[in-house]
Amino acid sequence: MSKPYVLGIDIGGTNTVFGIVDARGVVLASSAIKTQKHNNINDYIDELYTEIMRLLDLNDAVDKIHGIGIGAPNANYFTGIIEDGVNLPWPTPIPLAQIVSEKFGIPVAITNDANAAAIGEMTYGAARGLKDFIMITLGTGVGSGIVINGQLVYGHDGFAGELGHVIMKRNNGRLCGCGRTGCLEAYCSATGVARTAREFLEARTDESLLRNIPTEDITSKDVYDAAVAGDKLAQDVFEFTGNLLGEAFADFTVFSSPEAIILFGGLAKSGDLLLKPLRNSMEKNMMGIFKGKVRILLSELKEADAAVLGASALGWEAKPIAK
Amino acid sequence: MSKPYVLGIDIGGTNTVFGIVDARGVVLASSAIKTQKHNNINDYIDELYTEIMRLLDLNDAVDKIHGIGIGAPNANYFTGIIEDGVNLPWPTPIPLAQIVSEKFGIPVAITNDANAAAIGEMTYGAARGLKDFIMITLGTGVGSGIVINGQLVYGHDGFAGELGHVIMKRNNGRLCGCGRTGCLEAYCSATGVARTAREFLEARTDESLLRNIPTEDITSKDVYDAAVAGDKLAQDVFEFTGNLLGEAFADFTVFSSPEAIILFGGLAKSGDLLLKPLRNSMEKNMMGIFKGKVRILLSELKEADAAVLGASALGWEAKPIAK
Repeated sequence: MSKPYVLGIDIGGTNTVFGIVDARGVVLASSAIKTQKHNNINDYIDELYTEIMRLLDLNDAVDKIHGIGIGAPNANYFTGIIEDGVNLPWPTPIPLAQIVSEKFGIPVAITNDANAAAIGEMTYGAARGLKDFIMITLGTGVGSGIVINGQLVYGHDGFAGELGHVIMKRNNGRLCGCGRTGCLEAYCSATGVARTAREFLEARTDESLLRNIPTEDITSKDVYDAAVAGDKLAQDVFEFTGNLLGEAFADFTVFSSPEAIILFGGLAKSGDLLLKPLRNSMEKNMMGIFKGKVRILLSELKEADAAVLGASALGWEAKPIAK
Repeated sequence: MSKPYVLGIDIGGTNTVFGIVDARGVVLASSAIKTQKHNNINDYIDELYTEIMRLLDLNDAVDKIHGIGIGAPNANYFTGIIEDGVNLPWPTPIPLAQIVSEKFGIPVAITNDANAAAIGEMTYGAARGLKDFIMITLGTGVGSGIVINGQLVYGHDGFAGELGHVIMKRNNGRLCGCGRTGCLEAYCSATGVARTAREFLEARTDESLLRNIPTEDITSKDVYDAAVAGDKLAQDVFEFTGNLLGEAFADFTVFSSPEAIILFGGLAKSGDLLLKPLRNSMEKNMMGIFKGKVRILLSELKEADAAVLGASALGWEAKPIAK
């Protein structure tokens, strides 16, 4: 193969990570720049180009890149555009695929970060060999990438798979970042877990290690640490979170009947604190014909590589943009 | 084409309807037998065979059938089996595809009734040209057939698309036929509408035409007739039903981002009584990026033909069963 590599770029709110990846999913080399450094998108692209060309040069990979795959928030696979309503330092919409492909002279495909994770998992991780699965990313928000019959679900407009925004509480639900109330993301993201802890601390009177932390500073990591230390209130927060995720997963199952739901992101590393109530709740709430069929798996991608790997997998299918 | 027709068979709880269909979706001839007449599946198949051969003979269609498509409750596309838990007069599981293909010597494909309706709508009806839509059947139950990227969603086990069984009421929900509580089907099916009417009649004290009917005898048709006659309580039942469907449809949209949700079945003929609150509720509950994008359409298949047409469309892709 004359062009044996792809380039994966993961544009996060803080860092932009990129790497050279071969066909077996080995990250040959990677580096990063600060996403927030430039207020002008062209300056950002210029720095990205300089740093990527340096990396390619160092690794004897110039002219060996088959395609570029980019994962970015609100990135639309069909249009190649980063759509409105996203926490990046540049005005949206941004025709990202076009800008990058013109700059590099290489075909570019983009998708949102959760879809990139699903593609990465299917190509290199826990979902190898699975044709029907759902990737759930438990980070600052709750994202999802849905794979049905081996294909990522984009929907007619490229925006399918926003499972963090099913409504779990129809009355008195928490305000979500999307502007509505009661979304799964408002409860089961890392920030949701911290909110639950604050609610429990206010509603309850029992002792808790979390009472030693100023309420507004509590993070999901604090809740995890307290729970591991045996703190009952903190453990109840995970119980609550797992229960709600289980209810949601039972509903997802009647839609696409996946073989597995794969968890990715910081909260997914909470172990049985989260997984035990999650699995119990999912089975308890599951429609009869699906009971015992859906596996809950953890991502097998190394976290440092996952975003780049997921994005890079898209690079293999990137096509030149029609003028 | 030497075999220019397909045979569509719709096995309902009461009647089994079948018809000869050409490639343009014209039903050349159709007939029916009683599903409940025979307690032995073999006797039922024998009568079905006799009547179908008579129909083929009359229409000069013997040896011109490319394949047979069957829609039946709990019928699994992958296995060709009618699975457990279904209201038919024979013991389940029933290896229906095998039985019918051996009897007729023609390839058979089967799927559940809602999936058959979705395929029929995509091939001949309101969903022609659509690649991403959801078919919702509002009958005795609430069924669904989901099409993503032009393909029916079966899931890994053939049971995907049970959207009547997402949980809409997590507290004090109504008991559903599936054994759980709070399912969409328990509220928005024809029987759900009648249940809502009974609940409203008990909870409220205002006049209603429905008070002239013995409570247990009230049907969704009675509620419709009363609503059309201006009965406020009956109109409120449709408002409640439409609201709940709208909430559910907003959740379905974040999953697969369909261009349209297509309604089929008796309740779908309630006109603006149902559609107005449904559309309002769906838009009100819709996540921002999907607002104004999802059309609510009504099935364009003639009801008498719809089941047979939907089933028949499967006949084009039926393959001989491997021994």
